[in-house]
Amino acid sequence: MDFRSDNVAGVAEEIMVAIADANTGTATAYGDDEISQVLESAYSKLFEADVRVFPVLTGTIANSLSASLLSPPWGAIFAEAESHIYQDECGAPELFTGGAKIIPLQSRDGKIQPVDLHNRLATAGQGFVHASQPSAFSLTQSSEAGAVYTPEEVAELAAIAKKAGLGVHMDGARFANAVAALNAGNQSTSPADITWRAGVDVLSFGATKNGALGAEAIILFRTDLAKEMSFRHKRAGQLASKMRYISAQLAAYIEDDLWLRLADHANRLCAALAQGLGAISGVEIGSYGGANELFVELSGEVVIALRQEGFEFYDWPETVPAAVGRRCTIRLVTRHDMTEGEVKGLIAAVKQFAA
Amino acid sequence: MDFRSDNVAGVAEEIMVAIADANTGTATAYGDDEISQVLESAYSKLFEADVRVFPVLTGTIANSLSASLLSPPWGAIFAEAESHIYQDECGAPELFTGGAKIIPLQSRDGKIQPVDLHNRLATAGQGFVHASQPSAFSLTQSSEAGAVYTPEEVAELAAIAKKAGLGVHMDGARFANAVAALNAGNQSTSPADITWRAGVDVLSFGATKNGALGAEAIILFRTDLAKEMSFRHKRAGQLASKMRYISAQLAAYIEDDLWLRLADHANRLCAALAQGLGAISGVEIGSYGGANELFVELSGEVVIALRQEGFEFYDWPETVPAAVGRRCTIRLVTRHDMTEGEVKGLIAAVKQFAA
Amino acid sequence: MDFRSDNVAGVAEEIMVAIADANTGTATAYGDDEISQVLESAYSKLFEADVRVFPVLTGTIANSLSASLLSPPWGAIFAEAESHIYQDECGAPELFTGGAKIIPLQSRDGKIQPVDLHNRLATAGQGFVHASQPSAFSLTQSSEAGAVYTPEEVAELAAIAKKAGLGVHMDGARFANAVAALNAGNQSTSPADITWRAGVDVLSFGATKNGALGAEAIILFRTDLAKEMSFRHKRAGQLASKMRYISAQLAAYIEDDLWLRLADHANRLCAALAQGLGAISGVEIGSYGGANELFVELSGEVVIALRQEGFEFYDWPETVPAAVGRRCTIRLVTRHDMTEGEVKGLIAAVKQFAA
Amino acid sequence: MDFRSDNVAGVAEEIMVAIADANTGTATAYGDDEISQVLESAYSKLFEADVRVFPVLTGTIANSLSASLLSPPWGAIFAEAESHIYQDECGAPELFTGGAKIIPLQSRDGKIQPVDLHNRLATAGQGFVHASQPSAFSLTQSSEAGAVYTPEEVAELAAIAKKAGLGVHMDGARFANAVAALNAGNQSTSPADITWRAGVDVLSFGATKNGALGAEAIILFRTDLAKEMSFRHKRAGQLASKMRYISAQLAAYIEDDLWLRLADHANRLCAALAQGLGAISGVEIGSYGGANELFVELSGEVVIALRQEGFEFYDWPETVPAAVGRRCTIRLVTRHDMTEGEVKGLIAAVKQFAA
Repeated sequence: MDFRSDNVAGVAEEIMVAIADANTGTATAYGDDEISQVLESAYSKLFEADVRVFPVLTGTIANSLSASLLSPPWGAIFAEAESHIYQDECGAPELFTGGAKIIPLQSRDGKIQPVDLHNRLATAGQGFVHASQPSAFSLTQSSEAGAVYTPEEVAELAAIAKKAGLGVHMDGARFANAVAALNAGNQSTSPADITWRAGVDVLSFGATKNGALGAEAIILFRTDLAKEMSFRHKRAGQLASKMRYISAQLAAYIEDDLWLRLADHANRLCAALAQGLGAISGVEIGSYGGANELFVELSGEVVIALRQEGFEFYDWPETVPAAVGRRCTIRLVTRHDMTEGEVKGLIAAVKQFAA
Repeated sequence: MDFRSDNVAGVAEEIMVAIADANTGTATAYGDDEISQVLESAYSKLFEADVRVFPVLTGTIANSLSASLLSPPWGAIFAEAESHIYQDECGAPELFTGGAKIIPLQSRDGKIQPVDLHNRLATAGQGFVHASQPSAFSLTQSSEAGAVYTPEEVAELAAIAKKAGLGVHMDGARFANAVAALNAGNQSTSPADITWRAGVDVLSFGATKNGALGAEAIILFRTDLAKEMSFRHKRAGQLASKMRYISAQLAAYIEDDLWLRLADHANRLCAALAQGLGAISGVEIGSYGGANELFVELSGEVVIALRQEGFEFYDWPETVPAAVGRRCTIRLVTRHDMTEGEVKGLIAAVKQFAA
Repeated sequence: MDFRSDNVAGVAEEIMVAIADANTGTATAYGDDEISQVLESAYSKLFEADVRVFPVLTGTIANSLSASLLSPPWGAIFAEAESHIYQDECGAPELFTGGAKIIPLQSRDGKIQPVDLHNRLATAGQGFVHASQPSAFSLTQSSEAGAVYTPEEVAELAAIAKKAGLGVHMDGARFANAVAALNAGNQSTSPADITWRAGVDVLSFGATKNGALGAEAIILFRTDLAKEMSFRHKRAGQLASKMRYISAQLAAYIEDDLWLRLADHANRLCAALAQGLGAISGVEIGSYGGANELFVELSGEVVIALRQEGFEFYDWPETVPAAVGRRCTIRLVTRHDMTEGEVKGLIAAVKQFAA
Repeated sequence: MDFRSDNVAGVAEEIMVAIADANTGTATAYGDDEISQVLESAYSKLFEADVRVFPVLTGTIANSLSASLLSPPWGAIFAEAESHIYQDECGAPELFTGGAKIIPLQSRDGKIQPVDLHNRLATAGQGFVHASQPSAFSLTQSSEAGAVYTPEEVAELAAIAKKAGLGVHMDGARFANAVAALNAGNQSTSPADITWRAGVDVLSFGATKNGALGAEAIILFRTDLAKEMSFRHKRAGQLASKMRYISAQLAAYIEDDLWLRLADHANRLCAALAQGLGAISGVEIGSYGGANELFVELSGEVVIALRQEGFEFYDWPETVPAAVGRRCTIRLVTRHDMTEGEVKGLIAAVKQFAA
């Protein structure tokens, strides 16, 4: 039973069907096919705004190309210290921006606090020729620690960023989980509410972790950036000749709210996990924010026993392996294709070992 | 009927099946899944050598990352003036090499002549600190004009390059068509014969044009370059989290000689086209070398009539549109999923209009 | 006697004095000193326009930073095939532009012909996402072959470039020699006439070859580019802390027309050389355009004899060493600090050996 | 009276003379002149090792090119959070390395503590393909806060770095002040002791702040890096055509221990300043380590009164201007060309205002 990450998941059935359906006859290459051509109207409808859509293969490239639109090579990008854009891309943002510097910010549950952004910007050297110039702000929704920014929280951060002249990027590798979480119960938040209405200029819209085969979309709310992006996208090796098969995934992903249904499923399993594990003595729920990631503190003995039983998950941080004789933190991630049985199985096992 | 390019083709059935088969359960991300893990042994067998394989999404990135292994940022790369790496990548090779300069060489049917490479290298400024340093040679197999280098031709060029200290890269976007052509009739040439045995260090091994959904492989014959490549590959945004679906394509592509059967089919249709059109008065076969591209000269009137009839193909060069009253050149490309009927249809139509 | 290049020259006395004069007390660093602060008004007066001035150390950096203002990383820059920006900078323009591609154009005596620029631009792929985007045009004044563009010639080329949406850069490593040549006899051409009035946006204004210690100026006629340049300039490591000593050179250089007097001296010596050598049987004057470079064809025996006598100069091209038994071309360059005696000495020696 | 920085200083008389002496006749360009040719033997003698020397214009470029030798584009460079290489170069290190990431480390008086380097490296992701790869360590001697590393301290840090496979760079913008400080009184430390003998691979050897006109030297203790550096140096626009004038500065700078005499003078004045100010009630000496920088805490009223009296210096940090009603920190820097009178004047003024 595999709680390592949502990137170990398979492809959703609806998306497999869409790919197969796309495989009919010839189609103009490089995104001028019929499926790709209607993508922008579908996403514009989803986001209640005129958006431009650039399909890409990975979150690495989605974030890096997004950053390159908002920051010149001599720019500084402010991002969370544990964010992918800061520490998980082997220098990709630096490559595609031409050398921008990413400035790490502290966070609470992966969410940057307005005061921290404000204070850091105050000494960032805007206009001072010796400093990399403050150019962009990037936040991750849902956060690396599984927390979800509310529309108000996004708006407050974006306002601080914009006042300082920065563009705003959202890393939405798990955007679906965030939107689903913000719509759980009686709540209602539209994709627009936590993006452009709150001040986001460019969104890395993830699909791969939530059921696609290999497809992410860069969504430009600032359509004036599209022309430049078309060249950056090609130059990055992301203008697939058979684009129809990537576009088909992205089209199916949002059709009939598939993306939200998949994410909601994963979120519900995570909630069940949080509830089930939280009720066990000796287990403490750490960071959990309604999306599909859960951080749990428990004894090293239990962690090791779970692994021996075949459960898979990561120690957190990954660089600190679990050990007997001390409390350990693990990360648990639920998926669109996970079953209730898997969750129940893990809860039961923890209950057993922790007893 | 679509003769524009092989990149308008669909996905081969065997490859669709392989993707579907890969969609079972969870799999470790980032290439540590079971399908990806056996890719290198399969390709090592195919190439009769210990090779390292890096799956990527597009030919753009395959060529650019390959170049970045062989040339420093201050390097010069010698390539054919009409090659993709020189003129069709919107600066991607410059991006991924960090600023290498590509030096255009003239060619015959897209094939660089040894004397031209030799002469250009003689004045290229090796060791002269003011000159971009000669570092790599790149040739395209089959060539942009549909011609095929023999093993001896590759070896002669590679020897000149190596004597000057250059690494050798082969752009094999249509490598399958080249190998199939070299094995037509009673001939026999192995993939090894026209690559590492002839002096090639790095190969962009194309699959997308010949039946894959979106997958190319960078093949390293110099395995010492693999460690550096692993970082370049990630940093380029090409380390797909769900790598199993890309690897599945590349595995199925070479299983049971699928790639050669697909390419041979396209090549045979092209041969039939060349024979059929060549027999028509007023039609002249231009560049044709046994692969799946054919350049034909005919009257502008016929070209226009064919288009009106629904035939699709490109003027050549694309920047010179066909016009009445003069001879025009068009490019015809056959595909793995093209039918004999399409070829016969085109021949018949030309016959009719040229009459 | 040294006819190799004007970069073997010493520093003009007036400039040495200016440096010494600048060495008084403390001065604010990084260009906020008093000498640097008045540089822009002095150059604005010289160019009869509001210009922005960025002092740099070398022509390499002047050209490369200029290019980076006019071309994005995915841009194409059109320049003469023998120009410094194309072939003598070890990839510096590629570095500072972030990967722009320089497209070589043929020339006559180093001067690009309008028809060649026009034709090349016609097939350059403006707006075609696969092509590096045509962005800038760079011409060298005086040219690498010692020829001088008239204001009308510059204007014609710039008009073609601008019509295609390109920015225009002039490499003026020997700008002084060009202006002096255009003002020889009864002619009159102002620095403005061959730059912004003719359509030049950015000028690499050379001083080092013509009497400075180590100082070039990037002159922005488009002052809107100045803010971006201030960051590029710093990031390139060109914002000298003790800028006063570089600015002092650039200030003295144009004071009381020093630059034109120095250049005129060199030009006159070159004219004398052309006249003297041209009168010798067996000597043919090749490219010569009134500036300070002269290309001469003569027998290999004479070339070798001259070298044995201690005369220094380059074979042209440098990669083809002079040899007995055939005609050879050499390049002769005169300098601000060359004496009439040196010129007479060379003429006499050629006369003697050619007899 | 100017205590802002040592970069407001003038040029030492001996260096002006050397420049004038170099101004004789013609000289081969690009570093092949006689003065440049002996530079390496002079510096090899100074450092008691076979070193390679690359003269450059600024500290920005010295640090950035040094970094580019030790870190690939996907590398991580560990440096002090207040160091120039991290925060004062407007992205220059990122440009010249091709996108390396600089990881900020905390410090004590600008000196990195071994435990901090060790701990940060432990989680830095060596070999983990998602992380920028730990490649170089950079330390500043004397530190940004005026402290001086002992040979043992350098060696301990370098050993940690090397154990992790990192190259070691020293930013020696004020290397002379550090060496002079380590030789004050009866101590004795050679330049070799705090560089290669302690594990330093590449040194940015500063001269500009300590009496040169505009000259820094990149010293390679790893001579195997020289070939690559020759291309990087050219490509960075640092291969001055009239190199003799830069080399003359660097030659004169170390002749007869000029550099140490100049630095010792500045250091002594700083010591006098520390002693004089430290004896005044209400004044607290902050960071001071024997070199030429001194940080002093005193009341805002005194700071403002000093400024009104014409004393120049920086608030520290610069982004926090002094204000009445609270304690403030200022930075005082002494120079090679400062007089004892200036120091006495400042002490007297503080005494008066603090009374």
